[in-house]
Amino acid sequence: MSDNGERKLSIICSKGTLDMAYPGLVLANAALMEGIDVTMFFTFWGLEIVKRKSMDHLKATPLGNPAMGMPNIVGILPGVTAMASTMMKKEIEKLDFPPVSEFVEMIHDAGGKMYGCRMAMDMMKLEKEDLCDQIDDVIGAMEFMEMSDGAQIIFI
Amino acid sequence: MSDNGERKLSIICSKGTLDMAYPGLVLANAALMEGIDVTMFFTFWGLEIVKRKSMDHLKATPLGNPAMGMPNIVGILPGVTAMASTMMKKEIEKLDFPPVSEFVEMIHDAGGKMYGCRMAMDMMKLEKEDLCDQIDDVIGAMEFMEMSDGAQIIFI
Amino acid sequence: MSDNGERKLSIICSKGTLDMAYPGLVLANAALMEGIDVTMFFTFWGLEIVKRKSMDHLKATPLGNPAMGMPNIVGILPGVTAMASTMMKKEIEKLDFPPVSEFVEMIHDAGGKMYGCRMAMDMMKLEKEDLCDQIDDVIGAMEFMEMSDGAQIIFI
Repeated sequence: MSDNGERKLSIICSKGTLDMAYPGLVLANAALMEGIDVTMFFTFWGLEIVKRKSMDHLKATPLGNPAMGMPNIVGILPGVTAMASTMMKKEIEKLDFPPVSEFVEMIHDAGGKMYGCRMAMDMMKLEKEDLCDQIDDVIGAMEFMEMSDGAQIIFI
Repeated sequence: MSDNGERKLSIICSKGTLDMAYPGLVLANAALMEGIDVTMFFTFWGLEIVKRKSMDHLKATPLGNPAMGMPNIVGILPGVTAMASTMMKKEIEKLDFPPVSEFVEMIHDAGGKMYGCRMAMDMMKLEKEDLCDQIDDVIGAMEFMEMSDGAQIIFI
Repeated sequence: MSDNGERKLSIICSKGTLDMAYPGLVLANAALMEGIDVTMFFTFWGLEIVKRKSMDHLKATPLGNPAMGMPNIVGILPGVTAMASTMMKKEIEKLDFPPVSEFVEMIHDAGGKMYGCRMAMDMMKLEKEDLCDQIDDVIGAMEFMEMSDGAQIIFI
């Protein structure tokens, strides 16, 4: 709970695949619709979700994920990652969920706060300008911990 | 905390591999034994844990997981995923942990509530009948957020 | 919150790759600097982070992680995992973050408590002696649930 008793949710996004980007976006959006205060913190591979260049080109791969039901020997073939990504994007679109860039914009417009992780950005040599306009600021882990006081924290 | 002051735990299961199914089941079981109110929400690949067809056939792969100590070039060979999965199942059995379907039943019998995620099920074209009997309902992300008010949330 | 009103953070580390070890260590360190009570619980592949033999030899692989921007067909080549791991270690070092063993020591010295998961250790045939000196104890999931009463829980 925040000081004024409002429910808070902090979502740490550390994965940059299509299938791990949507859970964070869907939960953030649902929480905002419930009147919950939402903060998203993008770190490590999760920065791909908010990088201008990559946000609408996230990929999903069956490789290393036997739950997708494709043998690894097939998963390594060139084109399989692209195919799996395209298929998943189509399914998501059919369900009327917006593409990543639009979803990020929607969440931000609805009041969701969005931060890039300074350490991960330094590691990947990214500047604030490389991230989309919705990123409110670039912050360190200590600032994130301060902001998430009283929040439910989800690490994706 | 719930309205009556009871401790609550919400576990989101988003992975469908053998090695990521057990942490959720073990934590849910431990929490129930401690008298904690437990809700499990199965989404994306985590639906494999509660799909009748797959729940006792989850796999683990060394591919993309260097922590398992096997070179990727070996990991892609046909049969390696099956072998790694069989070995892990044997180790789990030796420790007297039940197979997935039995564990899910145990947790549900002990009062754990279990829900499928509507969006992920639509994406994967799954109906409630495709999931095991222990699934109490199929719900959306907003309903999940409502249920997890006051809970400790774990995203696996 | 703990009984005395102190903020608590429980971090479950279940991954043994270099890129998933640092987020837990960085958050634990940041939380301690904010005066938060920190407990780390190492389970499944996360035990690699605190195993004497592996802690300074964690690896990162582009395989199964398209966010790293390398085709899977390249990712399986012998030496690619080693190369990606070395590059990441150099970047982390440049940012003045300590290697894993030193970081674990720093966190423990600052008051962070560290526990190995009994079930995972039994499964991997590990004894307490196989883990580094900073591990306070080996505990079960029920004990972990007791300790994390009132804590914000992060599962990595």
